[in-house]
Amino acid sequence: MSQATFYHAGCTVCVDAEQMILNYLDKAKTTTEIVHLGTDPNRITEAEKLGVESVPALVIDGNVYHINFGASLKDVKG
Amino acid sequence: MSQATFYHAGCTVCVDAEQMILNYLDKAKTTTEIVHLGTDPNRITEAEKLGVESVPALVIDGNVYHINFGASLKDVKG
Repeated sequence: MSQATFYHAGCTVCVDAEQMILNYLDKAKTTTEIVHLGTDPNRITEAEKLGVESVPALVIDGNVYHINFGASLKDVKG
Repeated sequence: MSQATFYHAGCTVCVDAEQMILNYLDKAKTTTEIVHLGTDPNRITEAEKLGVESVPALVIDGNVYHINFGASLKDVKG
């Protein structure tokens, strides 16, 4: 079972990507955690270390997939 | 069953994203077609109409998800 983490910040682009992830990612193969960096800012450093540059982003097995562009991590940090 | 189309152009970023799509997209919910726009350039117009701006990109139910950035569609057209 792979660990998938979806980082977002509540933006429209993020919500749209989140629906796709929740609908179509194979639940038999992955456990998906949804992390809202706006309400959970203490996870921002972790996201940065993983290589997340913007949200929404999906991290699976250490690989980062930026899905469209909602906001840069810099802007999420404010 | 949803139709998913993954457009790419053979680049390293594309191949990496393709592996993730093939591994983790739920095959019980989607039928996935892989389209290589480099070897199948007659599909470029279709991709453009769907809203694909760069590859790799995944289109599900009419929604376009650009996954990281490999090349712009303009560059793929050459």
